[in-house]
Amino acid sequence: MSFNSFSRQHLDFVLYEVLGMEVILADAYFHGHHRETFDLTLDTATEIADTYLAPSYKLADRKEPELVEGQVKVHPAVHQYYQAYVQSGLLSATFPEMCGGQQLPKTIAAGVQYILAAANNSFVMFTDLVKGVANVILRFGNVEQKNTYLPKLLSGEWAATMCLTETQAGSSLSDITTCAIPVEDGIFRITGQKIFISAGDHDITENIVHLVLARIAGAPAGTKGISLFIVLKKQINNKEKWQDNDVASIGIIHKMGQKATPAMHLSFGGNNNCLGYLLGEANQGLQYMFQLMNAFRLEVGLMGVSVATHAYYTSLQYAIERTQGRRTNAKAANTLAVPIIQHPDVRRMLLSQKAFTEGTLAFILQCYQYMDMQKISKEAAQKKHYQDLLELLTPVAKTYGAESGNASIHNALQVLGGYGYTTDFPLEQMARDARIFSIYEGTTGIQSIALLGRQIAQNNGKSIDLWLEQVLPDIEKASELATLQTYANRLKREIENLQSVTSHLLNIRSEKGDEVFLADATLYMQLFGILNIAWQLLRMATIAEKALYNSSLAEDKKLFYRSKVSTMKFFFTYELTKCTGLCQQLMNEEQLTIYNEQEEMLI
Amino acid sequence: MSFNSFSRQHLDFVLYEVLGMEVILADAYFHGHHRETFDLTLDTATEIADTYLAPSYKLADRKEPELVEGQVKVHPAVHQYYQAYVQSGLLSATFPEMCGGQQLPKTIAAGVQYILAAANNSFVMFTDLVKGVANVILRFGNVEQKNTYLPKLLSGEWAATMCLTETQAGSSLSDITTCAIPVEDGIFRITGQKIFISAGDHDITENIVHLVLARIAGAPAGTKGISLFIVLKKQINNKEKWQDNDVASIGIIHKMGQKATPAMHLSFGGNNNCLGYLLGEANQGLQYMFQLMNAFRLEVGLMGVSVATHAYYTSLQYAIERTQGRRTNAKAANTLAVPIIQHPDVRRMLLSQKAFTEGTLAFILQCYQYMDMQKISKEAAQKKHYQDLLELLTPVAKTYGAESGNASIHNALQVLGGYGYTTDFPLEQMARDARIFSIYEGTTGIQSIALLGRQIAQNNGKSIDLWLEQVLPDIEKASELATLQTYANRLKREIENLQSVTSHLLNIRSEKGDEVFLADATLYMQLFGILNIAWQLLRMATIAEKALYNSSLAEDKKLFYRSKVSTMKFFFTYELTKCTGLCQQLMNEEQLTIYNEQEEMLI
Repeated sequence: MSFNSFSRQHLDFVLYEVLGMEVILADAYFHGHHRETFDLTLDTATEIADTYLAPSYKLADRKEPELVEGQVKVHPAVHQYYQAYVQSGLLSATFPEMCGGQQLPKTIAAGVQYILAAANNSFVMFTDLVKGVANVILRFGNVEQKNTYLPKLLSGEWAATMCLTETQAGSSLSDITTCAIPVEDGIFRITGQKIFISAGDHDITENIVHLVLARIAGAPAGTKGISLFIVLKKQINNKEKWQDNDVASIGIIHKMGQKATPAMHLSFGGNNNCLGYLLGEANQGLQYMFQLMNAFRLEVGLMGVSVATHAYYTSLQYAIERTQGRRTNAKAANTLAVPIIQHPDVRRMLLSQKAFTEGTLAFILQCYQYMDMQKISKEAAQKKHYQDLLELLTPVAKTYGAESGNASIHNALQVLGGYGYTTDFPLEQMARDARIFSIYEGTTGIQSIALLGRQIAQNNGKSIDLWLEQVLPDIEKASELATLQTYANRLKREIENLQSVTSHLLNIRSEKGDEVFLADATLYMQLFGILNIAWQLLRMATIAEKALYNSSLAEDKKLFYRSKVSTMKFFFTYELTKCTGLCQQLMNEEQLTIYNEQEEMLI
Repeated sequence: MSFNSFSRQHLDFVLYEVLGMEVILADAYFHGHHRETFDLTLDTATEIADTYLAPSYKLADRKEPELVEGQVKVHPAVHQYYQAYVQSGLLSATFPEMCGGQQLPKTIAAGVQYILAAANNSFVMFTDLVKGVANVILRFGNVEQKNTYLPKLLSGEWAATMCLTETQAGSSLSDITTCAIPVEDGIFRITGQKIFISAGDHDITENIVHLVLARIAGAPAGTKGISLFIVLKKQINNKEKWQDNDVASIGIIHKMGQKATPAMHLSFGGNNNCLGYLLGEANQGLQYMFQLMNAFRLEVGLMGVSVATHAYYTSLQYAIERTQGRRTNAKAANTLAVPIIQHPDVRRMLLSQKAFTEGTLAFILQCYQYMDMQKISKEAAQKKHYQDLLELLTPVAKTYGAESGNASIHNALQVLGGYGYTTDFPLEQMARDARIFSIYEGTTGIQSIALLGRQIAQNNGKSIDLWLEQVLPDIEKASELATLQTYANRLKREIENLQSVTSHLLNIRSEKGDEVFLADATLYMQLFGILNIAWQLLRMATIAEKALYNSSLAEDKKLFYRSKVSTMKFFFTYELTKCTGLCQQLMNEEQLTIYNEQEEMLI
């Protein structure tokens, strides 16, 4: 048996048997799309992954981008991927037909993204940014801006970046100081520096569209005074010639992984000669940027799953081929060594990866489906319903995908033992690459505060009710099957515990304020994350169990469905059991992590 | 406040207030040693760390060893460290006076090791191997071998390695095929290849003593037919000239971290011209090697703590200096940003590191003290008592230090956010370096089987009784203090749960055999690890609480002791609570990880 970097069978199961893509296809917006076109799209992604991404995954890690005379040069393989991606139509696929797109459902586009990022998470950053920035301009730009930039971006002619972070303003964007001084209507002179700008400079395209957060001179302090600007790397002057826009690459920030994507330190207006165009209204910049951030947060979670999926299949392949030791009940020295997949501890590490990758993929694709549902919703209330669900679940998808993705990859590395630690295998690179996922687009701590402090707290725990409307029917369906009843009950019980903890925390909030309330937000995030994956795995097990009623199924199909059930059981035993401890931690009232100026214990 | 890579105050607290080094100083073997000489020794270690280790930590990672014309060249800074270490007397310090050593207690030597490895875990590998190999020769070599090799090794003239792993034999040493054919009395012709040989070749010393596991032609299959050989890199021929011993460096195995230490692929006797000298008796090699392995297992656990300690203080320093955001209860846009150490989530990550490093350091130093106690024990029964304790706790020290050390370092990296991911800070390197600790000297899976399968099972759970004799008196002492009683009771309860789980598992063993019994050994290891650290932290909190009775203590001393109590509380809330889930997992009888040939679920 030979494994790829992902399994199309498992992906198709989620898309068609779990999410039932037909639900959205009925809508006119998605006319022309059906299973066959989706299949072709996913085939195209696989071909690009196999041809342009996988072969250069290691190579581009070993040969980092270079800054030569003010211009970053990236690995030649990035150029080839970029071109192939654009030519395949994938860059514009989810965009409206009026922009030259195909109105492809986001759920399918997420499947594409999964396939590509599994092969090379570093390269996809370049194209992701273009799509993300184009989306913001499509949504908030004026007609002229749309006409100017969308064709350039969606044709792949120009690339794009998002410029938020400054040296002193990372998690706290309210502290950015990059400044915009009005020159004429809608045009500003930008000065400031930005750091950690992914794909912030490169030689793939002739121009780059930077979306830059800056403060218009005299704007209110804090987040309410931040505006968003389109800043081009190069302008076209009156004689239709390119000229620099005073955007300078100060340096490439070298990092642990994702080395093929340059993280740039950029200077805007070092010679006071950098022009930017206001996007949307003044002082609304952060809100616009959050549209982009939200999309990226889901993508980062998905990247965690993608890399972990590739890691899983790499370690599975190894475990099947590598012989070492005997089964513990047959330890005669003269028996033959067995493939290590037969050892329970190795199986535990493999099953843990399988449960994470399959459960989290389903969870994140569910989020993308909510996006598609929102798109085709006709009524405002319905749109808001999906919007609320997305806002609740996006930080969870990002964080669970990132944190548990890291843990999953470390399990994969461990399966290979000493070989996993060597650069001969890709696991050590995956571990290095994936380490960024719990940091960028908002750290785990920030996401957790967003979840508990914004989503859960803002309507006094009602978001949980919204969520329960999604989850309880699936638990109900599971509990109707004799074989799954125990598991359905277990999940129900854990959800009741979540509700108790939530009420308890909301009481704490009114009694002791936000700081104490949010102190263990990250643990709340862990708890809620586990419950969401348990939900998805139980849901898949239910579908699989029902599919098994069909006794005429081929043997391999039967095995596939049975594996869905056993994967759920594994997660319920090895992960869902962690909820008890997490609830205990969250109920603890000692306030051990609250800062006390008079008594600093950290010494 | 400025932090070093470790805290002498915390180290001294363990050595003198917790372990009370006086206990062993009364014995004649340690004559001439006292607190002042220990202090000087630790000062020397600090000086070497500051002068030769810390400055080259990053540099040597960036410039890996090279294999040039069959000879490995390591970073020049390794040479300087090696010389300084030898000249300081630290290389031979723990050896008997008759070998030129100082009979330094192992506990103090472990303190030295902690200081050095915190600064540069890669460099200390070179000197560790020399000490380890010299110890094996001292213990099992004949008079001639001792006279020949010990002076060369302990003077630093020659270096050493341990050669166990072969391509097809990693965790399963019974499968090694390196072959030894008798030439004359005690001399054998060695042929075979070894991989992952740390410091397996270098240009620091004129010669290298390889300890090589091999099978004498005709020896029994499996572990009972393995012998240990001294194989020199170079021999001295009749004319007193160096000549090669047909040991060839086939290649350097490149890896994720610990890059300054070359992991070698070595060939022995490629031209059928490699001589080796039998060490001890034939077919007893694995047993001798395990003496060395045991010492290294403790050292690996200690390395985990060392690197994590340096990571902790790096992130603590950063958290004090880095301002970002406001406290959640004071979120006005115009207040000043606060140091991130004031944010509860950052404090949680810092306290988690503090609890891990302080608790695990105390635990591992306790193990070293058992070694010293064993050394000075007069009666066989007493010696065996300490031996049994060491055998029980060594795999735990190795694994907890490695696994939780990794987690701790990732917390440190996370505190720095995006900066932690860059190569400008040492955290990403520490994360890469430390990843090996749960792999080499026996993976976590192997250690866990050693704990549950050998230590716990072999005398039907009686090892736990031995352990309880150590732990219960400390719990008793804690429960006598009103402020600690709750915590003492909590630990007691968790230990009772451990006992129930252990009995349950031993029943499983007799009913269903070893494979099912050992399937979740790694979880048992996690559980037992947490309990050991909780024990140490409670013990330290008790001592601290008592010290606080002295009302004339200086304020900073009071704070220090109070921090010991709060660190224990933190661990009991955030880590000890994980035991419930672990027990649930261990009591589960679904056998989800047992291989079933007819129904492979891993697809």
